[in-house]
Amino acid sequence: MRPIALLTDFGHADHYVGVLHAVIECEAPGAVRIDLGHGLQAGDIWDACFQLRCAWHHMPADCVVLVIVDPGVGTGRRAVAVTVGSRSLVAPDNGIAAAVPEASAATVLDWRCMGLDEPSKTFHGRDLFAPAAARLASGADARDFGEEIDTNSLMTCPLPDPVITGSEIDGVILHVDGFGNLVTNVRADEIERSATAAWRAGRTSRRVETYGEAEAEEVVLLEGSAGYLELAVNCGSAAEATALQRGDRVMFSVGGD
Amino acid sequence: MRPIALLTDFGHADHYVGVLHAVIECEAPGAVRIDLGHGLQAGDIWDACFQLRCAWHHMPADCVVLVIVDPGVGTGRRAVAVTVGSRSLVAPDNGIAAAVPEASAATVLDWRCMGLDEPSKTFHGRDLFAPAAARLASGADARDFGEEIDTNSLMTCPLPDPVITGSEIDGVILHVDGFGNLVTNVRADEIERSATAAWRAGRTSRRVETYGEAEAEEVVLLEGSAGYLELAVNCGSAAEATALQRGDRVMFSVGGD
Amino acid sequence: MRPIALLTDFGHADHYVGVLHAVIECEAPGAVRIDLGHGLQAGDIWDACFQLRCAWHHMPADCVVLVIVDPGVGTGRRAVAVTVGSRSLVAPDNGIAAAVPEASAATVLDWRCMGLDEPSKTFHGRDLFAPAAARLASGADARDFGEEIDTNSLMTCPLPDPVITGSEIDGVILHVDGFGNLVTNVRADEIERSATAAWRAGRTSRRVETYGEAEAEEVVLLEGSAGYLELAVNCGSAAEATALQRGDRVMFSVGGD
Repeated sequence: MRPIALLTDFGHADHYVGVLHAVIECEAPGAVRIDLGHGLQAGDIWDACFQLRCAWHHMPADCVVLVIVDPGVGTGRRAVAVTVGSRSLVAPDNGIAAAVPEASAATVLDWRCMGLDEPSKTFHGRDLFAPAAARLASGADARDFGEEIDTNSLMTCPLPDPVITGSEIDGVILHVDGFGNLVTNVRADEIERSATAAWRAGRTSRRVETYGEAEAEEVVLLEGSAGYLELAVNCGSAAEATALQRGDRVMFSVGGD
Repeated sequence: MRPIALLTDFGHADHYVGVLHAVIECEAPGAVRIDLGHGLQAGDIWDACFQLRCAWHHMPADCVVLVIVDPGVGTGRRAVAVTVGSRSLVAPDNGIAAAVPEASAATVLDWRCMGLDEPSKTFHGRDLFAPAAARLASGADARDFGEEIDTNSLMTCPLPDPVITGSEIDGVILHVDGFGNLVTNVRADEIERSATAAWRAGRTSRRVETYGEAEAEEVVLLEGSAGYLELAVNCGSAAEATALQRGDRVMFSVGGD
Repeated sequence: MRPIALLTDFGHADHYVGVLHAVIECEAPGAVRIDLGHGLQAGDIWDACFQLRCAWHHMPADCVVLVIVDPGVGTGRRAVAVTVGSRSLVAPDNGIAAAVPEASAATVLDWRCMGLDEPSKTFHGRDLFAPAAARLASGADARDFGEEIDTNSLMTCPLPDPVITGSEIDGVILHVDGFGNLVTNVRADEIERSATAAWRAGRTSRRVETYGEAEAEEVVLLEGSAGYLELAVNCGSAAEATALQRGDRVMFSVGGD
């Protein structure tokens, strides 16, 4: 039995996450279930893509990853199961499936092919995605779930790439984490160690290796746990200190101080 | 070993939920545990009943469901284990046990009969309910836990039923979910497809099938995932758009536009 | 396989907790995992110590307890595995390991000895602590993880003890729980039943046994679930009623009322 990881925007105030787990336990009794997170902003595909990308390569090698952020539920958007190496990803086709390394195969989930009851119009997580994930965990072949599609037809991931112009890299804040760290889209291994980050007129941050190297209340630049450069304040919140938000620009100038 | 599902108002800031899980693992090592939710409002029996009712029939067929919302802990309120089909429900007798389909048997949990240490006065979840659920999961018979009682003596569920008068159905909002959807107590299969919902003087919502059919910012009426009609705003919050709250009335007039 | 309990300040908005679970599942497939809580205030060692102390003796007898509240990540602070009876505790050496009963052995976690990749500078939970916990669960001996150290060299726990002066006990609020209960550092079994608690000039609370004995809106004193005396309001929040906070003093005078 393959393990199943779950990432959703269902929050913790409702029974929705619990019902996903229950459906999985019904379809694949005893399957290992991993809560990758359920605190994504409602309908926020960008956040789903970011969190999935960061977590992806720590998942078990044969993991089935179930991601449900689905503002288009009940409309014509496709539901898909995607093969990426030895892992599977089950999600709406809304950009999420393109947030991870390149897929080798993709299948549209068709409840008729799967022998499921007709899904509700509002909770495909319970009625379609979770059963699909549970069956993959039990050894099913995704090709039996519906029509195979060209992986190039999958919706593209909304996360922006950094733009390189001469000696500058124009980055964007992808995520503000629970500690107030501001995670950019620039990877630490793509930039010189001496680079500095300008995040507002006249405000620049130097690179450090650890939170502990920062002066009190200093906004520093360091490599975060997923390999991206982030702005941080030791024992504090860079989000509060800078008033920066997701989507704001950060300029990296190589050869700075 | 039967799986155990947990639904409480313990929240996520304290160790209370974790201790429930630990006690279950001690009493029933390896039992499958499903978090049905721990974000219920403190002491909110109405919410517990609603969430339990929505989730109930998705639970594994032999599941032991442990619900702890217990403002009466330490007083004379009874603690019960109830049999409903092939499932069991363990909860305080405060209306929760009446939120699900009719019970065939009910037993009062008596710590002396169960050979437990005398429970604390403030955490029967840990000291009485979790051990009872774990033992049921391990194959124990609820009749060994204490005195059998008449299922008709169980406290009644506080959720109101809709009131039908002529061509109108007088409904109530049972729940505001994390997406801001307003879930009423009127089941979609009990009303004509053409019915409209009046939720304030001069404000009426038309029925749609999916969130995606709604116009931008339109408050629409649709069948939610548990079969109840709900007011919703696509990619938005009906709670914010209408300022309606739990307990507010919604009138359904059959034969509307 | 030993069960693993997890207590962190990672919150529920990010993938950090999910990645810990994934790493454990990779290293110790099928190990029982118990979420003891992830809602600790960021970097709050005091809260970690309190929650750990309350939950400790309910954990399975052979449990590996993984606690990650690590404001010093990436600096010279030590990472340790500690043996306490038949349980193990894996944590940064920042006071957490001293919150539980006395350790019989302690080892510094050394990624080289453990054959791990060099850890990131910002997420030792994922790169060092979780692998250590998973290996202990799988039967590894902590002494193989690095240098054994004197348990007396472990950092001390920041939780204050009450001060006894004549007929008074000078206590402190250790924790405000999710229900608004104010948990002090005075144990119920260390004080006479007739003692009262003065928590502000002219404001005193009487001792009761259950929440239900309190008058409406009365702030009462009772024994909480972990054995500490706490101020509480039945079906309400003592924190709101009193405006007291963690760290505030509560004076217990024996022979009151």
